[in-house]
Amino acid sequence: MELREIGEFGFIRRVSRGCLVRPEGVERAIGDDAAVFVVPPDELTLVTTDLLVERVHFLRDATTSFNLGHKAMAVNLSDIAAMGGIPREAFVSTAIPAGCPVEYLDGLYDGMKSLAARHGVNILGGDTTGSVADLILNVTVVGHVRRDEVLYRSGARPGDIVCLTGTVGDSRAGLHFVLEKLHPSDAAMRTLFDAHILPRPHLEEGRFLAATRAATAALDLSDGLSSDLMHIVEESGVGIRVHADRIPISAELREFCAGLDRDPFRFALAGGEDYVLAVTVRPDRIGEVGRDFAARFGRPLHRIGEATDSGHLELVTPGGQTEIVRPTGWDHFGEHGV
Amino acid sequence: MELREIGEFGFIRRVSRGCLVRPEGVERAIGDDAAVFVVPPDELTLVTTDLLVERVHFLRDATTSFNLGHKAMAVNLSDIAAMGGIPREAFVSTAIPAGCPVEYLDGLYDGMKSLAARHGVNILGGDTTGSVADLILNVTVVGHVRRDEVLYRSGARPGDIVCLTGTVGDSRAGLHFVLEKLHPSDAAMRTLFDAHILPRPHLEEGRFLAATRAATAALDLSDGLSSDLMHIVEESGVGIRVHADRIPISAELREFCAGLDRDPFRFALAGGEDYVLAVTVRPDRIGEVGRDFAARFGRPLHRIGEATDSGHLELVTPGGQTEIVRPTGWDHFGEHGV
Repeated sequence: MELREIGEFGFIRRVSRGCLVRPEGVERAIGDDAAVFVVPPDELTLVTTDLLVERVHFLRDATTSFNLGHKAMAVNLSDIAAMGGIPREAFVSTAIPAGCPVEYLDGLYDGMKSLAARHGVNILGGDTTGSVADLILNVTVVGHVRRDEVLYRSGARPGDIVCLTGTVGDSRAGLHFVLEKLHPSDAAMRTLFDAHILPRPHLEEGRFLAATRAATAALDLSDGLSSDLMHIVEESGVGIRVHADRIPISAELREFCAGLDRDPFRFALAGGEDYVLAVTVRPDRIGEVGRDFAARFGRPLHRIGEATDSGHLELVTPGGQTEIVRPTGWDHFGEHGV
Repeated sequence: MELREIGEFGFIRRVSRGCLVRPEGVERAIGDDAAVFVVPPDELTLVTTDLLVERVHFLRDATTSFNLGHKAMAVNLSDIAAMGGIPREAFVSTAIPAGCPVEYLDGLYDGMKSLAARHGVNILGGDTTGSVADLILNVTVVGHVRRDEVLYRSGARPGDIVCLTGTVGDSRAGLHFVLEKLHPSDAAMRTLFDAHILPRPHLEEGRFLAATRAATAALDLSDGLSSDLMHIVEESGVGIRVHADRIPISAELREFCAGLDRDPFRFALAGGEDYVLAVTVRPDRIGEVGRDFAARFGRPLHRIGEATDSGHLELVTPGGQTEIVRPTGWDHFGEHGV
């Protein structure tokens, strides 16, 4: 079906179904000049926004619209996770090229709504318009966090233990399948593909770590481990020493890299779009926090290094040598590549 | 200068200057995973978002980037005005085509920051990325309003007086200059051009009307008077009768239309992008509200008609005939034209 058959307002009515999953506190959703809602008293408000552009962030024929919608929502929820927060309301802007069928857009919104609903997030509004060339998707998420639990990038202190809530590099391997138009050959390769296509925001992990009050800084890994850790270095005014042999690399990524004769550490350090959290934890609490994390989530909180006073990001190689790391993550206007 | 010379983070540092104009209540601005701020206790939170797409909403060579930035911010502030609210924090996403010079983007952000600062609005974050074809700009604004002053589209009751806070149709005339690549020939034509290029959000008017507690419904005119009034008809479950000869048409629009042998009422009814407010006011308070409005703003609150129980939008022609109006405003996926 073509959009012009149902018109702008028909389309808005169509995609609005199922957007309001947590009505309490919502005074007005889609349909007025602005969305209107109540925020919990005494909590800090969090806002994050991400713009996805066709041919820059995705290829329309390389993923389903459901998966694209999932990812657009996931990257924003991941930012809220990195603050230790609870996401509450989402706002979706789409610019739709002529000829993009309504069924494609149904899938896009279903992908967003399904992940949002799983985390109790309402889609309360947005903007819908045409586009000449590319499909554009901007998602804004509003969330909340207790003032004494918020996790900034600036709180790390020398001696804190640097941890990851999951493995890194899988998403970059999954991107390989997308770019090469390959189907994952087995369940292991499917895991890598899904890590790229259907990233899971680590919201429960972020909330858990914030509630311990032992976490001192956090961010989510979107640009690549080395590039992202540099933000903690800069914002906290510390150094970070990462031990290469402690970086969690999945068995699937090792298998993938062995098959292509590639170095999994390059994928782990510079790959990007992992959407796991990097967190610094007070050294006197790390034992207890690590145990509780493992008990709660059934997998380890990976300790990859420690904050230092060097002012640099350093990598200790498996051979025991220390190198200063030059960030090699994603710059949208610069030079890059794994 | 090209963007790749300063990189993504250099660009963010560059445009971040002057974004924080009202620091109180702001815990984190640009530079963490999310912006963090405190909202006033006991107030409702408002969120609105608008997406501007090159070749759909603007032509890059038909306006300056400063004016484009102004308009992107203005249309969002206008939505907050229509709720009777106070805008507080803005979030800006831009997708930038290769070759778009840094100086162009400086102007774009200057246009946004200048209007935002005038209204005490911080730009607290956003997203910056590349684009293959078109320049894309998404602005989200968060604002607040007292619960007993919020203006919805749904509050109009039969008998309420329908008012406009300014003249309509000027913006559509200004668009004529843009589309025909004409320079305004004199101050009067410049006024029309500016109404389209540099719309002024009616924030003070919205706050004034909300504070009277005599306004029952409001919206801002973006799609066209007839199309927009239909939203009040639908959301409030009323009818609206507009008297054509009471629609405020500026002397400049009359002069413009006389010169081109066009009907100014067509421009006023269907033009769009006026960004004045349509407000319904309790009939027992209209005299006092109109007087106070005129005293405060030095121009009249235009009474163009009344809410009825007909369920239709009706136009009473200058000859005294009543016609049911079919909305002819903007549908991004439909057929249209003045």
